[in-house]
Amino acid sequence: MAKSILITGGARSGKSSLAERMTLGLHPTATYIATAQAFDAEMAERIAHHQARRGPEWTTHAEPRDLVGALEATDGTRPRLVDCLTVWLSNLLLAGEDWQGAAERLVAALPRQAAPVVLVTNEVGAGIVPENRLAREFRDAAGFLNQAVAGVSDEVWLCVSGCPVRLKPPQGEGPTP
Amino acid sequence: MAKSILITGGARSGKSSLAERMTLGLHPTATYIATAQAFDAEMAERIAHHQARRGPEWTTHAEPRDLVGALEATDGTRPRLVDCLTVWLSNLLLAGEDWQGAAERLVAALPRQAAPVVLVTNEVGAGIVPENRLAREFRDAAGFLNQAVAGVSDEVWLCVSGCPVRLKPPQGEGPTP
Amino acid sequence: MAKSILITGGARSGKSSLAERMTLGLHPTATYIATAQAFDAEMAERIAHHQARRGPEWTTHAEPRDLVGALEATDGTRPRLVDCLTVWLSNLLLAGEDWQGAAERLVAALPRQAAPVVLVTNEVGAGIVPENRLAREFRDAAGFLNQAVAGVSDEVWLCVSGCPVRLKPPQGEGPTP
Repeated sequence: MAKSILITGGARSGKSSLAERMTLGLHPTATYIATAQAFDAEMAERIAHHQARRGPEWTTHAEPRDLVGALEATDGTRPRLVDCLTVWLSNLLLAGEDWQGAAERLVAALPRQAAPVVLVTNEVGAGIVPENRLAREFRDAAGFLNQAVAGVSDEVWLCVSGCPVRLKPPQGEGPTP
Repeated sequence: MAKSILITGGARSGKSSLAERMTLGLHPTATYIATAQAFDAEMAERIAHHQARRGPEWTTHAEPRDLVGALEATDGTRPRLVDCLTVWLSNLLLAGEDWQGAAERLVAALPRQAAPVVLVTNEVGAGIVPENRLAREFRDAAGFLNQAVAGVSDEVWLCVSGCPVRLKPPQGEGPTP
Repeated sequence: MAKSILITGGARSGKSSLAERMTLGLHPTATYIATAQAFDAEMAERIAHHQARRGPEWTTHAEPRDLVGALEATDGTRPRLVDCLTVWLSNLLLAGEDWQGAAERLVAALPRQAAPVVLVTNEVGAGIVPENRLAREFRDAAGFLNQAVAGVSDEVWLCVSGCPVRLKPPQGEGPTP
């Protein structure tokens, strides 16, 4: 059973850079599973920004919704970086798909992988309660997804201002009991 | 003097589950002090979701505003779980009550308790500054309340993606001096 | 080369109090570099609130935009507290100035300082993605600025509910590799 690593943090907290370093630390070449779709110029710019940072060690596999299929298609010896879970969740919600079923299938698939998986996600629940109902539903769904994936991950890291903080395994003693 | 434990985190970060485990770890039965009021269907659904997770070990004491009264009425041998402080704060603000006075009375009451108190709160200040003035005032008030309660708590924990991080007592050395 | 310390956290998380204690822990008197401008009554109230907490140990140097100039003008033996970077960033954006160039000059200037610098910033990226494009650009810019300043700081601290968490140097082992 290969290692799963979840990396979370706020916007522009250094998550993707950390994930890339950790993935290439596992193997000299790796597969980048991109969940983003370029709906508009702003998104295209963000995708281009991320791609520009990655070097020739990376093979890109774009998959907006069938993440378990993408993991199965790319499993082997090279580690996979999934960037990112919240965009994948958003794609499922926009397509009207059963995100809870998809999350369960992902949680079941991760421990079956032969090659490691590094997953990037976003902290979206530490601001004020959004006035928009869809935004509230999205942040609830993202929170459940992050908890579920963290539960089956060997390591969980939080990025804050570019600094990684290890959440799992815990630093020091955990809560009693 | 019984222990006070504060558990904070963003939306759907695993705060309530952790608080329930920690409370039942202190004693086989416990009192759940619920501050939520079901104003609408969405809120009723959230309350039902939380209740469904709790088992027969729990006695519920609903109290939207008089939290110090609820702590006095339920003090004895069983630990109390207060879920949650930000909803309590919101109830006080909506009722036009003096939340600062109420926060001071809570901070004074916690060290007097015979049975332990586990308090759940929310991180609401790590997003962009809200455009809505009431939302800004609420997040300022929540920040002050969280600091004040953390100041008199024996332990403070942050939940991120379901992973607890101990904030107090600090991990390793604190800031100098 | 004097020490640089970055202190981040959400709104009302205890950042400024911690920064003041840490600055006065370095030297009995200090310079407060205030970046805030009182555009309206709410802001004037926030500035007055912060000033009221500071004692006679502090000399205030107000500078909304030319932060490197302010650091040069105040360098000597007394430590400087910059409060705060996100307000400075916001002032640059409102004035239509090149914030990226300014951030690079700040990052280059910090290691040149003779007297220590403690910088306060804000976590603004852990809420839901803002609907407002300017807000999205601001949180991206703040994230980049925080990462860049953290990168040249000797210590980085996160405040949560008044509790400081050391991010740099890291607690325990960092990510592998």
